[in-house]
Amino acid sequence: MRNILIIGCGKSSSALIKYLQEKSESENLKLTIGDISLENAQKFVNNHPKTQAIKLDIFDKTQRQERLQEADIVISMLPARFHIEVAKDCIVFNKNLVTASYISKEMEALDEQVKANNLVFMNEIGVDPGIDHMSAMQVIDNIRAQGGKMLLFESFTGGLVAPESDNNLWNYKFTWNPRNVVVAGQGGAAEFIQEGQFKYIPYHRLFRRTEFMEVEGYGKFEGYANRNSLAYQEVYGLQNIKTLYRGTLRRVGFSKAWNMFVQLGMTDDTYNMENSEEMSYRDFVNAFLPYSPTDSVELKTRYSLKIDQDDLMWEKLVELDIFNRNKKIGIKNATPAQALQKILEDKWTLSPDDKDMIVMYHKFGYELNGEKKQIDSTMVLEGENQTYTAMAKTVGLPVAIAALKILNREITTSGVLRPIDQAVYEPILKELETYGVIFKEKEMKYLGYNIDNVVG
Amino acid sequence: MRNILIIGCGKSSSALIKYLQEKSESENLKLTIGDISLENAQKFVNNHPKTQAIKLDIFDKTQRQERLQEADIVISMLPARFHIEVAKDCIVFNKNLVTASYISKEMEALDEQVKANNLVFMNEIGVDPGIDHMSAMQVIDNIRAQGGKMLLFESFTGGLVAPESDNNLWNYKFTWNPRNVVVAGQGGAAEFIQEGQFKYIPYHRLFRRTEFMEVEGYGKFEGYANRNSLAYQEVYGLQNIKTLYRGTLRRVGFSKAWNMFVQLGMTDDTYNMENSEEMSYRDFVNAFLPYSPTDSVELKTRYSLKIDQDDLMWEKLVELDIFNRNKKIGIKNATPAQALQKILEDKWTLSPDDKDMIVMYHKFGYELNGEKKQIDSTMVLEGENQTYTAMAKTVGLPVAIAALKILNREITTSGVLRPIDQAVYEPILKELETYGVIFKEKEMKYLGYNIDNVVG
Repeated sequence: MRNILIIGCGKSSSALIKYLQEKSESENLKLTIGDISLENAQKFVNNHPKTQAIKLDIFDKTQRQERLQEADIVISMLPARFHIEVAKDCIVFNKNLVTASYISKEMEALDEQVKANNLVFMNEIGVDPGIDHMSAMQVIDNIRAQGGKMLLFESFTGGLVAPESDNNLWNYKFTWNPRNVVVAGQGGAAEFIQEGQFKYIPYHRLFRRTEFMEVEGYGKFEGYANRNSLAYQEVYGLQNIKTLYRGTLRRVGFSKAWNMFVQLGMTDDTYNMENSEEMSYRDFVNAFLPYSPTDSVELKTRYSLKIDQDDLMWEKLVELDIFNRNKKIGIKNATPAQALQKILEDKWTLSPDDKDMIVMYHKFGYELNGEKKQIDSTMVLEGENQTYTAMAKTVGLPVAIAALKILNREITTSGVLRPIDQAVYEPILKELETYGVIFKEKEMKYLGYNIDNVVG
Repeated sequence: MRNILIIGCGKSSSALIKYLQEKSESENLKLTIGDISLENAQKFVNNHPKTQAIKLDIFDKTQRQERLQEADIVISMLPARFHIEVAKDCIVFNKNLVTASYISKEMEALDEQVKANNLVFMNEIGVDPGIDHMSAMQVIDNIRAQGGKMLLFESFTGGLVAPESDNNLWNYKFTWNPRNVVVAGQGGAAEFIQEGQFKYIPYHRLFRRTEFMEVEGYGKFEGYANRNSLAYQEVYGLQNIKTLYRGTLRRVGFSKAWNMFVQLGMTDDTYNMENSEEMSYRDFVNAFLPYSPTDSVELKTRYSLKIDQDDLMWEKLVELDIFNRNKKIGIKNATPAQALQKILEDKWTLSPDDKDMIVMYHKFGYELNGEKKQIDSTMVLEGENQTYTAMAKTVGLPVAIAALKILNREITTSGVLRPIDQAVYEPILKELETYGVIFKEKEMKYLGYNIDNVVG
């Protein structure tokens, strides 16, 4: 019986645990789910005979190390900043480790020790990062194997609401951590490369520099730039590429409307507002508008954002009930971002029957035998329900599949890794297909970075 | 013979040193000017028999303490962050200290020790902070002495080019540290109070939320908000005031044009641009615009900033030669702000015959005997030449006057202070008048905070 220790469980653990439970008999697996809340861990047991839930405080070193020693492999689903102590213990006790988080500098620094101990620390193997890495590298490696040279790589991922549950003017609901959505794009300019030129977008312009993309059967989406595109030169070996751009997908029109909040200053998370607890939604809006002895908050908002009388943008604000005089923010010393999150959660929280959706869109431009070509690759996965969401499946399944393959010595390369090697991504992507994670490729006319499709 | 040690000298030291030299005979003064560059210190000697220049490295503790022990009072004109070691030594060796800088937390923390030693550490006694404190407190104390209650305080200061030297479309030249101008307003939202409501302006809107003001004989100016208005509640005892707003003055139209740089992201000082050394001015502009296979940097700029064909804003950009293909930024790893500063310095550096100008504008709203009233108080000082600039005079003269008064025991209150007590500001303001620093007061109709002067 092989013991898999899963540390920390949240929304994304459902599909991960279900997968391993389904394999427990054939693969001879025992699961230990450790969480700071025993009650929370117990939710994931599902009456499965080989699964035990335990209370596990990762800051209790003795307990942590005891549990770790009993494991044959460790999956950490903790928030990214908490992985490092677990990772260090994994070196001490010679355990392999799987996480869905970006490799931090501290994690990266363990690489030599991990290699010296012949261990596998597989990270960035959720959806984004994770499935994006694997599906992109599969196409890139294939182009290179044919002798092609990469010219352009653009990649977008979005966690959205499924079409059947898409019933507000924003075409958006929170399917993941709302806070990350509210502060998305902050902390510095977005940097990327377009046709060999380095380009920079400041935060306050980010949501007005989108691209549109069409996904067959799902219509149009738009993408705004992520901050970190340049890092992918190194990771994917795209050092001389002409265009490199990573972004986040939303339904068309979301970004332009979101920009209203950015422009007013409502997404700022760096200071606390006075009297935020007693502040009404209307007061919150008014705090970003000049005082006037005569004019309404509504007209000041329209004027400040140049919203015409017949502009749908206005209806999007009204739908949020953001001018309400009675609803209170109710949070002490709230930052604007926290106050805005409160207002949005009233309207953008999934209803019990709502389903979510993950959409991924890659563009690969390349030159092969003197000819310039482009492949667009898309993936859409809808959630089953509020437990087995598209997010939980796309984050949890690759983690679970990788963990089992490492346990079975099918993945053996040692080090602090991400899933960018063919030996890793090929079998995982293949298995993911049986769970509905299917990429569709389409040949496109290569026009380079060319937002208006102008034929020079 | 009393020895005044002046540590650190720059542009602002000329008027300060001249004042003390002129008083040296009558007041029995000896001046020691210490600077990291002996050559620089020597420039300020002016063949004056009682002035010596020395090389002084404030990080050389032995030398610093030696020189300090010989002094009867110390004036530190060092950059604000370097005062603290000097201040600590002043406590050890029982010396009074004068600086023109904002009181830092470290300086504030010395208050008890300074009081225990019965010393005077007078800070914030330049122009802004300095003359603004003194001239505002004089009016505020006067209103209170009559039994009035403060309702509104707005205060604006600007370092500008004098009308006779004002010959570019921006009506602006650098009369002080250009870097401070380029990054002005960054680091967080501006916070202030309008009619009892806390208001917040994010950086990217700061230069579009200006107020206009008229100064008799000088025409219109505009003010944009400083970040720190709320701190003045405490400092000036304005805790229950309805409107509190501090800002920076520019000529009308400057802020709207400056906003073009803010919108493009050119004032960002948080990251380094790729290839900045070899980048042309045109490349710099293009880095903030999307790639296009067909369109010019000019049209992309107009489109991105929505500049109509006949808008003077465009001429302001062209005047800066910002689309030049041949001029290079020439700075390694420049931030956008550093690159922009380079471009602006080509055009906004004062010519040898140019004169500068300091403008200050205060508004005081108050209630007296049931009646609401307003006094506007303005001060304009033009520079004499490039040595005795308005900036050097308004920064240096209050420092020099205060230092002499402390030396003569005319100012004796001990502690880490700013010039907000009548006993301090009254005689200094009086003496400043003889140097042309004259405030003109005017009674105005009180309309509260009311940017469009709407009569309710």
